[in-house]
Amino acid sequence: MMKFTDEELIVVKKLEILKNEAGSHSPGIFTFRQKLPEVEIKIDACFLSNPYATDLFIEYFNKEILETGRIRDLLECYPSQNGVIAEILADFLAINPQHIFIGNGAIEIIQAVIHNFTEKKIMINIPTFSSYYEYVKEGVEVIYNELSKAEDYSLDVDRYIAKVKFYRPDTIVLINPNNPNGAYTRIVDVQRILDELWFVKNIIVDESFIHFAYESQSYQLVSLSNLVAENPNLIVIKSMSKDFGVAGIRAGYGIMKQEYVQQLLSRGYLWNSNGLAEYFFRLYTRSDFAMRYDILRVKYIVETLEFIKELRQLPYIKVYPSMANFVLIELTNGIMASDFVAKLLISYGIYIRTCDDKIGLEGQFIRLASRSRTENNYIINSLRCCLEMNVVLDLIDEKAI
Amino acid sequence: MMKFTDEELIVVKKLEILKNEAGSHSPGIFTFRQKLPEVEIKIDACFLSNPYATDLFIEYFNKEILETGRIRDLLECYPSQNGVIAEILADFLAINPQHIFIGNGAIEIIQAVIHNFTEKKIMINIPTFSSYYEYVKEGVEVIYNELSKAEDYSLDVDRYIAKVKFYRPDTIVLINPNNPNGAYTRIVDVQRILDELWFVKNIIVDESFIHFAYESQSYQLVSLSNLVAENPNLIVIKSMSKDFGVAGIRAGYGIMKQEYVQQLLSRGYLWNSNGLAEYFFRLYTRSDFAMRYDILRVKYIVETLEFIKELRQLPYIKVYPSMANFVLIELTNGIMASDFVAKLLISYGIYIRTCDDKIGLEGQFIRLASRSRTENNYIINSLRCCLEMNVVLDLIDEKAI
Repeated sequence: MMKFTDEELIVVKKLEILKNEAGSHSPGIFTFRQKLPEVEIKIDACFLSNPYATDLFIEYFNKEILETGRIRDLLECYPSQNGVIAEILADFLAINPQHIFIGNGAIEIIQAVIHNFTEKKIMINIPTFSSYYEYVKEGVEVIYNELSKAEDYSLDVDRYIAKVKFYRPDTIVLINPNNPNGAYTRIVDVQRILDELWFVKNIIVDESFIHFAYESQSYQLVSLSNLVAENPNLIVIKSMSKDFGVAGIRAGYGIMKQEYVQQLLSRGYLWNSNGLAEYFFRLYTRSDFAMRYDILRVKYIVETLEFIKELRQLPYIKVYPSMANFVLIELTNGIMASDFVAKLLISYGIYIRTCDDKIGLEGQFIRLASRSRTENNYIINSLRCCLEMNVVLDLIDEKAI
Repeated sequence: MMKFTDEELIVVKKLEILKNEAGSHSPGIFTFRQKLPEVEIKIDACFLSNPYATDLFIEYFNKEILETGRIRDLLECYPSQNGVIAEILADFLAINPQHIFIGNGAIEIIQAVIHNFTEKKIMINIPTFSSYYEYVKEGVEVIYNELSKAEDYSLDVDRYIAKVKFYRPDTIVLINPNNPNGAYTRIVDVQRILDELWFVKNIIVDESFIHFAYESQSYQLVSLSNLVAENPNLIVIKSMSKDFGVAGIRAGYGIMKQEYVQQLLSRGYLWNSNGLAEYFFRLYTRSDFAMRYDILRVKYIVETLEFIKELRQLPYIKVYPSMANFVLIELTNGIMASDFVAKLLISYGIYIRTCDDKIGLEGQFIRLASRSRTENNYIINSLRCCLEMNVVLDLIDEKAI
């Protein structure tokens, strides 16, 4: 049990209400500040992003948009149409622009694909990002593939392939690395899935966290994007807000067969980007920016690895293996995840996410993002303090009895 | 016939390609600059917005977002969820928040409503904003209600009601004032439509240009928003980019029955706003801002009236009646609309829109936006010069023969 003062308990109650109002996602920072002004968030470790990449983006944004006054254009003018932005990205990714669909955040693409192309049956690994099952339309059957706790919620590819062959869904979803645990399935294994499951109409691979995964010592970027041309059932979805911490801009893209892109564009999604998102894509695809970004991507991966290593030294928690920029942590000493989250927020100003709304997780779990090195150190010390203090207070209680 | 030099003809050709690539909408300014850098646009009279309101927005934005450094928050943080922004707007509009759906631009709401709630048959007045028929899903029948040229493309309410009763569509669309001609249907007449057509499942009234219409000498704002509660088949759609010239931000909202809002939100549209759009809505609903905006709204209406009056003095054109911030103009001296648009752009740097892609218009039409008073004067002088010069050149040609 976590100990709270009476004052703290009022905040705990308010937090609970706020969380319930936000449904299966964490309330955003704006909402949080408006509704819970008494709590000061020092570190948002709920927010999954590379802070160094954010700094880099802001540096360019200040220089090219704010200092030049170009911000007015971005606010005032219609963004370019979907296909124009797709062309810009296509050059950079070395992919046919006809395969690219630009989204108002990856979540719009998830919605568009599932609403338009899933017919009867979708298979979803759990635990997972909830929108994949929440956005399913009425009449579509959802098959949950429960990842095994004993296997650290990683994907057993052979069993997965067998299960898909058995249930014959028309759509399957693989988040790689997976959210909320960060388990990674190697490209060679995903290729095997593609080969064996050629009969599945839609194989969605969500690569929103792929910039933090690697298969070589040089941390080179991996991706399935270039496999779409030869695997027409493959749909790659990519959020840009994880890599760059630009969630407010809403930038994502999907790579899928030409017919799908055409079908979506023929019925809408004309100006679904905004001026800032267009600037973002134009910048992201410039070689001067891309080279600087890649250095910061690798720096952040290395620091995240150190962070995870230090987390593993802490008592009373289990840290699950992750190749994303966050870790799934299980509380092993009887503390409720929601209490732990409240305590960290109230006493240390650290905002993290409970996973008690995630189906497919058994136990008390939190998801913790890796931030800058300084912030990570503060998080480590706070977690240690919070966990150990609670044990000490437990002892006092026992003595008092 | 419009006369062009050989050099100009090259640009004319490029313009044509650019226009074709953009489909049934004008290419945006970013695309334009990228693909046609040799043409300098002095005035974008294609862009339908109140420039004074843009200045006001930018003034607040500079002071509150740029100078304070809050821009970083807007870029970095997830925007609040749809329902949170709806609540902010609800207070301002004095409407139940459960009736409000926030859109990534009005166009997203048009798409959402037509895809989700139109069942079999939609009736659309033409000429109109093309997305209303382009976004119709396969299998839905479109009935076009051709507005009469002899009646200046205004809506004859009795005939309209009779036609709807005859065809029995499940969805009807009324843009008020209408785009591209600006004809306005008075609230009392729209109320009659609502009363008589109670059996129609969805009555969409698009009020994107309603801030420029008025029914009293005080130019007080009119709207059907508050009628949704008692007319569950009414859906009011509102773009904010016309009033404020913030097309790059993507801000719009829809007012519709609670079940519709819930249905949309249960399957998506969670973070479909962006950080700037959220700031925009928070600002728009503040009384200090709202009072200043209303002054500029009326100032712009008055100047637009003067602009239209002056346009009516020009030779060789017919100016159609409008209560929007643009006018539909017919070229009556044999000039092709596409040639006229090209000439105005190349010789005067004025970017306007041809209406040759608008179904339901017979003749050579352009749509011209009202801009600031200075810009409007420049437009008037350029139009006069362009029209008269062409007649002079025609005379020279005849003499040469």
